[in-house]
Amino acid sequence: MFRSITCLAGGVGAARFIDGLSQVFPSDKITVIVNTGDDLQYLGCHVSPDIDIVTYTLAGIADPEKGWGIKNDTHNCLDQLAKYSAETWFRIGDKDFATHLLRTAFLQQGFNLSEVTEKIRTSLAVKVSILPMTDNVVSTKIKTPQGVLEFQEYFVKRGFQDRVEDVTYEGASLATPAPGVAPAIEKTDLIILCPSNPILSIGPILAIPGIRDSMSKTRAKIVGISPIVGGKAVKGPLDRMMASLGLEVSPCGVAQLYKGLMKGYVIDQLDKSIAPKITSLGLRILTTNTLMDSMEAKIQLARNTISFAETLA
Amino acid sequence: MFRSITCLAGGVGAARFIDGLSQVFPSDKITVIVNTGDDLQYLGCHVSPDIDIVTYTLAGIADPEKGWGIKNDTHNCLDQLAKYSAETWFRIGDKDFATHLLRTAFLQQGFNLSEVTEKIRTSLAVKVSILPMTDNVVSTKIKTPQGVLEFQEYFVKRGFQDRVEDVTYEGASLATPAPGVAPAIEKTDLIILCPSNPILSIGPILAIPGIRDSMSKTRAKIVGISPIVGGKAVKGPLDRMMASLGLEVSPCGVAQLYKGLMKGYVIDQLDKSIAPKITSLGLRILTTNTLMDSMEAKIQLARNTISFAETLA
Repeated sequence: MFRSITCLAGGVGAARFIDGLSQVFPSDKITVIVNTGDDLQYLGCHVSPDIDIVTYTLAGIADPEKGWGIKNDTHNCLDQLAKYSAETWFRIGDKDFATHLLRTAFLQQGFNLSEVTEKIRTSLAVKVSILPMTDNVVSTKIKTPQGVLEFQEYFVKRGFQDRVEDVTYEGASLATPAPGVAPAIEKTDLIILCPSNPILSIGPILAIPGIRDSMSKTRAKIVGISPIVGGKAVKGPLDRMMASLGLEVSPCGVAQLYKGLMKGYVIDQLDKSIAPKITSLGLRILTTNTLMDSMEAKIQLARNTISFAETLA
Repeated sequence: MFRSITCLAGGVGAARFIDGLSQVFPSDKITVIVNTGDDLQYLGCHVSPDIDIVTYTLAGIADPEKGWGIKNDTHNCLDQLAKYSAETWFRIGDKDFATHLLRTAFLQQGFNLSEVTEKIRTSLAVKVSILPMTDNVVSTKIKTPQGVLEFQEYFVKRGFQDRVEDVTYEGASLATPAPGVAPAIEKTDLIILCPSNPILSIGPILAIPGIRDSMSKTRAKIVGISPIVGGKAVKGPLDRMMASLGLEVSPCGVAQLYKGLMKGYVIDQLDKSIAPKITSLGLRILTTNTLMDSMEAKIQLARNTISFAETLA
C-alpha cells in the first residue's frame, strides 16, 4: 500500500483521472503538480487553465461538457466585452472570471501563484493538494509555419490547426519548482504521469531543471497512463502534433518520450497489439480500459493503476 | 440659441439630466466633464462609477432602479468571488465587470482614462462627449469620527451612516484637467452644474486648479440645478452631510457653496418660498419641477433650464 501519491498533470484528462483517484485513495495524501506553461494574460487577468480545471473538477463544479470552466456559467461579461470589440476567443464565463480576478489581485499584492492556488483550493474545499509546477513564468511556445504562437493562440484561437514544427518552454530553464514540488516528488512512493499531453502538459513540468533533478533522485515508483488510444488523442491536438513532429502516434510513441523516466505504463485495451513493442523498451505494461467516460470508469482506472504499480519492482 | 453646452457632472442625477438634455439639444454639441474622485480599485480593476453611470444612461443600458450598473445584469462573478471570501460589498454585475476589465487593461497598456472613456463611449454609440475631469488620480476622502474613509467605503460599504467631519480631494491640487476639459469650459456658451452633490461630485471637479482657472476665464453663462428638494437630497447622503458640516440643508445652502461661480440657479417648485433668500445672494432663479421621474420630466427640465439660461445677461 502506498503512503502517498504524486501526480504530474495537465488539464482535462489529468483532472478526470485524479477525480477517480481521490475516490480510491485518501485525498489528503494526493499531491498534484500542475502544468502552468499554458497560463495566459487575458485583459490583465492571470488565467491558469490547467490549475483551474483540476481544481474545479475536484471541487465538483467543472463544466462536464466543455473541458474547462465552471458548470452552469453565463457569459454576460464576455458578451459585453464583445460590444467593446475586445478579443473574446478565450471563452471565460462569469463565475470563471472570479477565479482569474482573485488570482490576479493576489499576485499584484505580492503573493505567488502557489499561495493563490492554495487559497482557491481551500475555498472550494478541495482536499487534494494542488501545486503549480513553478511560481515563475514559463510559457509554452508553438513554432508553426505561420510563426511562433503563444500556446492559447495555437490551441484555442486557431483551434490547433497549424502544423507544429517545434515546441519550446520559454523560461523553463531558469524556473525553480514551486514550494512543495520537490518534496512531493522525492518523498512519495508513487508518481503517476497522468493521461495528459506529454509535449504540451507534462513536457513543461519536466523542462524545469529542479523537477527533473527530483525525478532522478526519487525512489518512488513511476507509472504513466497513455493519452493516446487507438492511434488518436482522447482529446486535443496530441495526435496531429506527434505526427507533424515525426513521432509515432501511438502509446509507444508517448512511451519513447518518457524513456528512462517511468517503470510501468498503462495503455488502453484497444492498443493491446502494440504492448510487446512497448515492453521491448524495458517497460512493464498494464492493458485496461483507459477511457474515463463515467465516474465508475475513472475509479476503475485509478484502482487498476494503483494495483499495477504495487506489482512493480 | 447656444452653440454648445458643457455640463459638470456626478452620477445618477447628472446622468438623468443629461439624458433629457440630449433629447432637446444636439448630442454632439454636449460635453460632460465627469467627477472621478469616486473611482476605486476593486480586485485590481479600475472602476469609475460616475463615468459609467453617465455612459450607460446615455447608451440606454443603465439599470433604471439601482442607479448604477447595466440593466438585466447578473452577479455570477461576484457570487463566485464570495465563495473565495473576497469583499463583495461593491456590487459589480457581470456585464459591468466587462467595462472595468477593459478600462484596466487599456490603462495597463499605457492609455489614459480619457482615451479609455472615449473608447467605451464610442463602442456604445453615445454621441455626447464624455470627459473625465482629469487623467490623474484624485481620491475623495471622508473624515468621520471613525477615521478617514475612502469614498466608496463611506458611501457603499457603510451606507453613508457616518457623521462627516471633513471632505478632502487627495491629489486634486496637483492634477491637471484631462485633454478637452479646458476648451470645453472656455469655449462653450453655456455651462450647467448638474443636480449632483456639490461636495462629493462637483467639489472634486472644482478642486482641480486648471478647471477653476478655466471656470474663471470662461465667458459662458453658468447655471446650476439644485440637488436638494424640499430640504432633502433627491438621492444619496447630501442632506445629512451638509447638516453635519454645519451647512444649511436647502437649495440656498448649495447656492452658497457655488457662490461667485454661477449666474442662474434652478430650484424645485417645492422650494419656492426660499427663492427670495437665494436671489439675495445675487442669483437669478428659475422655479420649476426638478424631479426627473420620467423621460418627459427630464426633457422638460432640460428645456426649461436652457430657456432660463437664455434670459440671463
